[in-house]
Amino acid sequence: MNDIKKIAVLKGDYIGPEIMAAGLAVLKAATDSQQFKYELIDLPFGGDGIDRAGDPLPQSTIDQAKQADAILLSAIGGPKWDQAPRRPEQGLLEIRAALNLFANIRPTKITDRQVDRSPLKKAYVTGTDFVIVRELTSGAYFGKPRELQAHQAIDTMYYNESEVVRIMHEGFKMAQKRRHHVTIVDKSNVLATSKFWRNIAKEIAPQYPDVMVDYYYVDAMTMAIMSKPTAFDVIITPNLFGDILSDEAAQITGSIGQIPSMSVGSEGPNLYEPIHGSAPDIAGKGIANPISMVNTVAMMLSESFGEKAIAEKIYRAVDAVIDQGDVTPDMGGDLSTEAVTQKMIMHIQSDE
Amino acid sequence: MNDIKKIAVLKGDYIGPEIMAAGLAVLKAATDSQQFKYELIDLPFGGDGIDRAGDPLPQSTIDQAKQADAILLSAIGGPKWDQAPRRPEQGLLEIRAALNLFANIRPTKITDRQVDRSPLKKAYVTGTDFVIVRELTSGAYFGKPRELQAHQAIDTMYYNESEVVRIMHEGFKMAQKRRHHVTIVDKSNVLATSKFWRNIAKEIAPQYPDVMVDYYYVDAMTMAIMSKPTAFDVIITPNLFGDILSDEAAQITGSIGQIPSMSVGSEGPNLYEPIHGSAPDIAGKGIANPISMVNTVAMMLSESFGEKAIAEKIYRAVDAVIDQGDVTPDMGGDLSTEAVTQKMIMHIQSDE
Ligand SMILES: CC(C)[C@H](C(=O)O)[C@@H](O)C(=O)O
Ligand SMILES: CC(C)[C@H](C(=O)O)[C@@H](O)C(=O)O
Repeated sequence: MNDIKKIAVLKGDYIGPEIMAAGLAVLKAATDSQQFKYELIDLPFGGDGIDRAGDPLPQSTIDQAKQADAILLSAIGGPKWDQAPRRPEQGLLEIRAALNLFANIRPTKITDRQVDRSPLKKAYVTGTDFVIVRELTSGAYFGKPRELQAHQAIDTMYYNESEVVRIMHEGFKMAQKRRHHVTIVDKSNVLATSKFWRNIAKEIAPQYPDVMVDYYYVDAMTMAIMSKPTAFDVIITPNLFGDILSDEAAQITGSIGQIPSMSVGSEGPNLYEPIHGSAPDIAGKGIANPISMVNTVAMMLSESFGEKAIAEKIYRAVDAVIDQGDVTPDMGGDLSTEAVTQKMIMHIQSDE
Repeated sequence: MNDIKKIAVLKGDYIGPEIMAAGLAVLKAATDSQQFKYELIDLPFGGDGIDRAGDPLPQSTIDQAKQADAILLSAIGGPKWDQAPRRPEQGLLEIRAALNLFANIRPTKITDRQVDRSPLKKAYVTGTDFVIVRELTSGAYFGKPRELQAHQAIDTMYYNESEVVRIMHEGFKMAQKRRHHVTIVDKSNVLATSKFWRNIAKEIAPQYPDVMVDYYYVDAMTMAIMSKPTAFDVIITPNLFGDILSDEAAQITGSIGQIPSMSVGSEGPNLYEPIHGSAPDIAGKGIANPISMVNTVAMMLSESFGEKAIAEKIYRAVDAVIDQGDVTPDMGGDLSTEAVTQKMIMHIQSDE
């Protein structure tokens, strides 16, 4: 008898719940006739946390998320909570810390059918396939003091040895399963935390003799992501630079509405989320692109549950709707979120 | 009788002196038959400062640079000084602080003849014309403490009110002379210094009712620079984000070997420099692209000395060599630095 997987669902704000519904519908369809059994645990979080439980990250959400086998999160935040004492984003930072999700993994892969959607010329992007490994629980996002005073303000970038060591191993190990190439990004010609970062990378690199390593300053990296994206495999970066570079990387695909991400810790469940925001401007119109959340669900099935075959079936359904132009307006189609989702489910159900 | 302008020359490292020689040759040719008189003051700086005077920024260089009417700087740094106790980059940070050069101005303009060189598709870049105004003497580059310890490291991001106020006015005033549009970049959903930055921007904006203002998070901005570069006019950003975004912006032109920049303070001379690095890999081969330094010289003539007509003549010479393909290998040509420079000088001498 199979055990039942617990999936925590943090449904998000604005378009968040719309695409979450799509993702869950696809999850159900793809697992219906399979051995894979799960239950969903709906937890208040972000703006929805403020509305339903008075806080973007209620303690009960932390407690229950920790008990889950995986966490599915949709885009959060938006103008409704701009004046909240604790904004939705605060909940996002704190759940990363509370669950010790120190590595954020963001794939940038440009399939042949995506090349036309890229703002970059075909010759530059064709064949792009890299992953950004972003440190997620330290650096400029968590250093203290962080103070907003009347006439000045301070943030602190901080890294200690174990924080840098573990993210390096995460990235190097990933490279061993991929194309054996790691790129270290920092600003070590200026910042002490970056010198520290690079020094540790240089100590760890020899432990992975099968991995080729190179080093970029973050400013030069923004150029390289655009001018030679095919030159990279695994990119390891501090928190703040990872935030910046992963958005740039998403943009070269021209398909930010399709990209999933995964955050992992040393123990406890992984957290899966689309990389885009909650798009308040199109919320409620029924036209949000469900593909990012559907890909996020597939990533969860594959990475947390080892259900690679089911994930592949979902990816085929995504490819099918894109090929047939059965997509939302942001991708040049004229279908609703609901209609695209139904098309994907049809493909899944007829997939042998 | 005209006075004689003092130009401090910090000639740079690796390809630095090669392109500086080109820039100075063009300066001479373009001003030969004009009223404009100048003298050059050669000052040790960067790696050259370490070699000639034992420090990347000797006190005498600061003193004499302060007395100059403008400062011309070429690319500095490189592997030769990697182990120096004070590296060349340290000199760059310190001269910015010593001369109080708080605003770094980096134009991104894509002329029709550059569109083909961009990694971006034509439809995205055609018509791009914006300026990044980067705060240059505070933020993450100068905050204390900055400490590299055995098992941890710390940097400090810091801004006080007067630092943010003056860079805002610099940017808003520039927008009034351009297309009356300012974009404020920060990471105010996470960082205290960024909230501070945005709060001050919102206080100052009403003083410029003829300027339209919008706000971007730095991560979203990396996407917008690529997906809609024509949407921007003046972009005002903190030091670290400006470093990152201005390199990305340079890359969308596909012509980093052509782009000048200017750093300005409240009093004292402006500093002019190409935005690219010292390219140790091609140094000594005589193939460095002189255009960035030639454009830098033209920018100095126009902005510090009001010599717009001479600057225009230089820009026409640059356009001419590009049109005729008389360029260095990085731009697809096969001419040497020296040969491209001579071509530009010929164009200047035959220009009306
Ligand atoms: C919403 C924001 C706090 C978050 C971040 O900066 O980490 C987002 O941009 C991301 O990349 O996940
Ligand atoms: C060389 C380096 C210290 C410098 C900086 O980071 O400011 C450079 O990248 C620049 O943008 O002028």
